Amino acid sequence: MSSVTVTLPDGSTLEMESGATVEDVAYEIGPGLGRDTVAGKIDHELVAKEESITEDCEIEIVTDQSDEYLDVLRHTAAHVLAQAILRHHPDAKLTIGPFTDEGFYYDIADVELDADDLDEIQAEAEAIIEEDLDVERVAYGRDEAAEKYADNEFKREILETEAAGDGPVSFYQQGEFEDLCKGPHVESTGEIGGFKVLETSGAYWRGDEENEMLTRVYGTAFPTESDLEAFLERREEAKERDHRKIGREMDLFSVPEHSPGCPHYHPNGMAMRRELEDYIREQNDDLGFDEVRTPELNKAELWKPTGHYETFTENGEMFAWHQDDTEYGLKPMNCANHAHIYSETTHSYRDLPIRYSEFGNVYRNEQSGELSGLLRVRGLTQDDGHAFVRPDQIQSEILAILRTIEEIYGAMDLDVLYKLETQGDDAMGSDEIWEQATDALKDALAAESLDYDVEPGEAAFYGPKIGINAKDALGREWTIGTVQVDFNIPRSLDLTYIGEDNEGHHPVMIHRALLGSFERFMGVLIEHFKGRFPTWLAPEQVRILPVTDDNLGYAHRLANELDGFRVDIEDRSWTVGKKIQQAHDDNVPYMLVVGDDEEDANAVSVRDRQEREEKGVEMDAFVDHLEDEVSEKRLEPDFLGE
Amino acid sequence: MSSVTVTLPDGSTLEMESGATVEDVAYEIGPGLGRDTVAGKIDHELVAKEESITEDCEIEIVTDQSDEYLDVLRHTAAHVLAQAILRHHPDAKLTIGPFTDEGFYYDIADVELDADDLDEIQAEAEAIIEEDLDVERVAYGRDEAAEKYADNEFKREILETEAAGDGPVSFYQQGEFEDLCKGPHVESTGEIGGFKVLETSGAYWRGDEENEMLTRVYGTAFPTESDLEAFLERREEAKERDHRKIGREMDLFSVPEHSPGCPHYHPNGMAMRRELEDYIREQNDDLGFDEVRTPELNKAELWKPTGHYETFTENGEMFAWHQDDTEYGLKPMNCANHAHIYSETTHSYRDLPIRYSEFGNVYRNEQSGELSGLLRVRGLTQDDGHAFVRPDQIQSEILAILRTIEEIYGAMDLDVLYKLETQGDDAMGSDEIWEQATDALKDALAAESLDYDVEPGEAAFYGPKIGINAKDALGREWTIGTVQVDFNIPRSLDLTYIGEDNEGHHPVMIHRALLGSFERFMGVLIEHFKGRFPTWLAPEQVRILPVTDDNLGYAHRLANELDGFRVDIEDRSWTVGKKIQQAHDDNVPYMLVVGDDEEDANAVSVRDRQEREEKGVEMDAFVDHLEDEVSEKRLEPDFLGE
Repeated sequence: MSSVTVTLPDGSTLEMESGATVEDVAYEIGPGLGRDTVAGKIDHELVAKEESITEDCEIEIVTDQSDEYLDVLRHTAAHVLAQAILRHHPDAKLTIGPFTDEGFYYDIADVELDADDLDEIQAEAEAIIEEDLDVERVAYGRDEAAEKYADNEFKREILETEAAGDGPVSFYQQGEFEDLCKGPHVESTGEIGGFKVLETSGAYWRGDEENEMLTRVYGTAFPTESDLEAFLERREEAKERDHRKIGREMDLFSVPEHSPGCPHYHPNGMAMRRELEDYIREQNDDLGFDEVRTPELNKAELWKPTGHYETFTENGEMFAWHQDDTEYGLKPMNCANHAHIYSETTHSYRDLPIRYSEFGNVYRNEQSGELSGLLRVRGLTQDDGHAFVRPDQIQSEILAILRTIEEIYGAMDLDVLYKLETQGDDAMGSDEIWEQATDALKDALAAESLDYDVEPGEAAFYGPKIGINAKDALGREWTIGTVQVDFNIPRSLDLTYIGEDNEGHHPVMIHRALLGSFERFMGVLIEHFKGRFPTWLAPEQVRILPVTDDNLGYAHRLANELDGFRVDIEDRSWTVGKKIQQAHDDNVPYMLVVGDDEEDANAVSVRDRQEREEKGVEMDAFVDHLEDEVSEKRLEPDFLGE
Repeated sequence: MSSVTVTLPDGSTLEMESGATVEDVAYEIGPGLGRDTVAGKIDHELVAKEESITEDCEIEIVTDQSDEYLDVLRHTAAHVLAQAILRHHPDAKLTIGPFTDEGFYYDIADVELDADDLDEIQAEAEAIIEEDLDVERVAYGRDEAAEKYADNEFKREILETEAAGDGPVSFYQQGEFEDLCKGPHVESTGEIGGFKVLETSGAYWRGDEENEMLTRVYGTAFPTESDLEAFLERREEAKERDHRKIGREMDLFSVPEHSPGCPHYHPNGMAMRRELEDYIREQNDDLGFDEVRTPELNKAELWKPTGHYETFTENGEMFAWHQDDTEYGLKPMNCANHAHIYSETTHSYRDLPIRYSEFGNVYRNEQSGELSGLLRVRGLTQDDGHAFVRPDQIQSEILAILRTIEEIYGAMDLDVLYKLETQGDDAMGSDEIWEQATDALKDALAAESLDYDVEPGEAAFYGPKIGINAKDALGREWTIGTVQVDFNIPRSLDLTYIGEDNEGHHPVMIHRALLGSFERFMGVLIEHFKGRFPTWLAPEQVRILPVTDDNLGYAHRLANELDGFRVDIEDRSWTVGKKIQQAHDDNVPYMLVVGDDEEDANAVSVRDRQEREEKGVEMDAFVDHLEDEVSEKRLEPDFLGE
């Protein structure tokens, strides 16, 4: 038999007979590893340990200590779920049941499940786990497999598509249950320590609206019960923080049916956005960026010389159309328009860096099923910026941007993580240029002593990138800002500056966004702060609560003294208790309670969101403090100190 | 013979025999008027006095005292131009030669004209006027007419289209020249007092790119030489002020090929726009408008319930297209999105007025031939606002808006003119509603004692309007702001508030824009100020001119003291004289000249745009003044008093 070369993660190689399995490779490395093998990865793809190797490849062995073990466990948990459903709904037809980042699901036809059914399925699944059934891989001939699915057109379709071929097909069995499946799976259902049915939703077969609607049952699973409990707690907390829920409660924004993925900012949300815009404008001014403004609508030809047209239209990601014999598009990025502005005047080496910033409205035609509030949108405003620099200015330029990003994220109490994304398969331009650009980014990160992860092959086609991730109060990471070094676009658009040698040279283009987009950043902030925004960002900063309607006049005089702040007067005929409760529910940082006592003393009672209170406060003292608190962007109301 | 009823401008009627001419009507009114008749208007359309009347109609008599006389005179002047051209280029083929607002043109095939030719044509035209040739109308049979144009396919086409019919066709003759023409014309070429050939351009036959390119010769004419001279002077001044020219010279904006009608704001233009935005934001805050933000991209269905979809798509004025089975459009206005935000929450009568403002980016598919710089665009940002009010709040709401408009335009040294536009043919909703809305506008104008012109039938389909016109430094009027009262959209979208009676009521929607759009307003300001903007608006407020490179360090220290202002340092190795000249050319309000003397004295020499100068100025005094000048939005730099 012929032999194949297997490369292991440490770079070493093994010669194996063609047809050997992943498990054989593990045993070849050592009998202990062989025994511990749960599954494997062939060329980075997760496979069953029984998978045979017929070509040279890279192999990783997955044990219960590997990150991928959770995926394998959840794959088995999906089978446990299906088995539990079939025990109670024998006519249900299974379709597909993959693992996901958060657990797994199974899409099932011909079944309807209510809350009681889900409880029953949860109990049954726990029983199956208790039964500790062995999970075994078996091979059937194609006819035999098809016969098993005589009543299940979905599985038959899989047999003819994903599982097509000449040889036998693999099934996995546990107890009375079996399922067409490539694996991998854990050895027995008892390995699942914590199992939870989460919810159901509808899902079209193959994700296509033209097809039958199936019942999707979501669940999750962990090796231990305590892992599951921690997950469920975090999930509950994340639900509480869901920016769509808080956005509705605080009347911040809406994403109506008539504009899928295109948020409408209500006055409260817009007040926050204006604060963020002002803050970023200050940062841009300090960084020496000059604001420009370019239109959403352009002829599609604008994006052809740089390759963006092809990239964005091949998967329909651009809004583009023909009208009056012209192909128009909505800009998916601002680079080309900024390059135009750069090209409109002559630049000397002494004028560089030339820096343009724009709150640029871009549109991308994301799948409607992917859209979610402010975090997954079609219409967004990037706090975009392009610096056109000489090669000797790259590092200082990037450094200044990284320092600003540290400052901004610090002001929001967000941790920053850096990801260096390097040259991918679709990269434009020479390897040499890419190396030069990548080194520039590495040097800047090193100069600032910043830790970073490398994400090989993840960069956009025109240059390597530092992706800025923010870690929120729940420890979740959000990709937000970006710094990219680009030697390509200035060449493809023939942008130049006149050098000291009186010759034309191509500048280097640095693309950067501090927040990424206002939409995404606000979505993150809402969840991060759970609606309890720092006073400078809060849509309503102070609410005045007159004890009775008699105190309304005094309340209005106080509101005037707070000119320049966002102040409301609670004028509904409620009890003070109810007014206070409502202000807390609305996350208002400060409440000023004013009754006859306060009016007589020409003072106010200050309450804050943390339920601290002080009576007899002079208004001037409060206003002075508020000015400082807001201008210093403090994270929590702190007029009423610890 | 049957008779027809002719209605005169004063509303009186005459019975005339069918077939009577306009001139007959004039004689019927009185022999003096009959003799003075130059032309007439039948149902508002300008016609020759020989035109016969065969149906009941409205008639106006045009004499040399009428506004329309200038049009008639220029029509004859177009013939004079054509005659002059034919005398020197006998093979040229005439096509069409209409009058315009500013003069007239003639489109001619098979001729090429250079500057010398134009001089020759001017001289020849003057000769033709000197010859004082009688202009006479003659009628030819169709075959005879066609024969005359055996070599002219354009005129033959006109004979078969615009001039189609069975009867004879009219020509006008003067001397050896004759032209297929409906008229009207003046009696002799000598009536033209001032005649000027202006320029040539290319023009497609019928305005269609598929057709032959013709030579268009522009000219103008007036009854007197002095009228012509005044016109040419104003034209020269308008050219000097052309915002496209100044926009290029001051690097304010560009409208590139790839985005027809969609201005790109360069840093200088954006600096001005940001000042305007900040100013309008202040006004909106003072007026109680809450800023919102809505997307450019929406499903087309959004505009259907209000009738906007039909209005904007029937003439292709909306950018709209189908993608992924959905019809999308770019918003042509913001009303529907604001109505959505209003509808998202419940409003009590006590909450009204609810006011939303937005710097809303709207797009309208104007003909590419109509586009011009910032003044005729496709993409624009309205400083839009919608107030949802109770009926009893209409007048105070409109009054507050009108007062703000007076203030804003005053700050720009622009006179304001008001036009009341009333119900048109396409009006939506009942006459009663329109009357109510129109009265509300009239009452507000009366309450503020504002003069206004009525423009009958000019309102948009959803409500009557006060159009705000600004009169610039050249006396030209620009339609800019608008206030509209709308009882219709709240009904068609079923917007409601809960009244004191606990029932739902429709609010009244007041649409308003203070500036109209930033594009148009900036275009007007550039021409109005001729680039010499008030300091608060100037893209560059102060330029520091070091006498030698040795003074550069001092210049940079001064620039730091001017933090918050827009300051540049002139660091080119030029003489001070050249630096000063350049700063004047760039319309910079203030120059600080700093040499060794200034540096030693820790002072500056201040020069202003008006060429006043003062040496030995303390920097603090200048900065204090600048702060006041800017915050008070003074029209001219006035540190150096009269």
